Amino acid sequence: MREAIETRFSIRRFSPEPVPPGDLEEILRLASLAPSAWNLQPWRFLVVRHPWTKGALREAAYGQEALESAPLVIVLYSDMRDALETVDEVIPPQMPEKRYQREKETIRQVFGPMTEAERETWGAGQSYIALGHLMLAARSMGYDTLPMLGFSSSKVKEALGLSEHVQIPALVPLGVADEGGYPRHRHDLGRIVAFHDPGRGALR
Amino acid sequence: MREAIETRFSIRRFSPEPVPPGDLEEILRLASLAPSAWNLQPWRFLVVRHPWTKGALREAAYGQEALESAPLVIVLYSDMRDALETVDEVIPPQMPEKRYQREKETIRQVFGPMTEAERETWGAGQSYIALGHLMLAARSMGYDTLPMLGFSSSKVKEALGLSEHVQIPALVPLGVADEGGYPRHRHDLGRIVAFHDPGRGALR
Repeated sequence: MREAIETRFSIRRFSPEPVPPGDLEEILRLASLAPSAWNLQPWRFLVVRHPWTKGALREAAYGQEALESAPLVIVLYSDMRDALETVDEVIPPQMPEKRYQREKETIRQVFGPMTEAERETWGAGQSYIALGHLMLAARSMGYDTLPMLGFSSSKVKEALGLSEHVQIPALVPLGVADEGGYPRHRHDLGRIVAFHDPGRGALR
Repeated sequence: MREAIETRFSIRRFSPEPVPPGDLEEILRLASLAPSAWNLQPWRFLVVRHPWTKGALREAAYGQEALESAPLVIVLYSDMRDALETVDEVIPPQMPEKRYQREKETIRQVFGPMTEAERETWGAGQSYIALGHLMLAARSMGYDTLPMLGFSSSKVKEALGLSEHVQIPALVPLGVADEGGYPRHRHDLGRIVAFHDPGRGALR
């Protein structure tokens, strides 16, 4: 796991080598084990393999090559409308009846006052937890990914026939890397970590 | 890594066993390797270990026990104001000058028109990528976590002296589990995965 994190780099060019369906399924299964608030699991995965469709995605994403060179693209989208309409599917059935009803009521109270766009933004945020799992699962199985967060959502929806209301947190080309990947450039830990001292409030 | 995903469960009660500083640092370092759009890395980690402060967090989070039983709580927050004010720290220095300037301009164009709240919501979403890494890094090192997404943000900020403008995507109690964890209840893959057929638009 540490190795998967250490060796994960964003890959811009992939080899044409296909991803066997069993490997893809295992990657998606591992991604689906990610946690989410109230277990709502708002993430959905649409797998794109056809060259035409990959070409359309590339056009929607300012020409980025990985969308065509990768053997497949996982379109990660969140669908909170679906998630909230089917809450009974995700609340653990072994939960005692009273807690089950309270859980449903809490979900209703939290999301009821939101606009649909706010709900979907929330769902897209949660979906990034699954994205983290997905990239690391792929890496641990010898594959690489490019988490693409910049593209025209409306063009992607149009190309794929996705509903207007969903949000698309990421397009994820996946395959065998054909290059070493971007070098990583991250903050030093001292820049982003602080230890809270109760006598003084936060240190930064 | 597959093992880390398979064996990660949300833990509600922790043993008092402390987390050695070297292990904590390694977990945070691995979390910090997560990718983000434009490499902005808006996530910040505030480590809380003092019983008083953990008690205050528990109060802010509807009494959830894990916040006190865990030897430490990582408060994951995003600070887009800081991230955008220091963009030069995150754009890779080896980038050719022209691309460097274009990158800065793109970031300005994307975030300029947003309200501060919209920017922070975006940053909080990105921070969930790091949260996925953090939980799996901890698990692979023998520790467990509870990703807590429900709490009063304003109370947490007040208890910790965090700025009004930041967003807090999660409180993460971390330590050695003292129970088996919630059983997992996830959608079958068939419910959340579809394969795009270019002749028919999205299958669902």
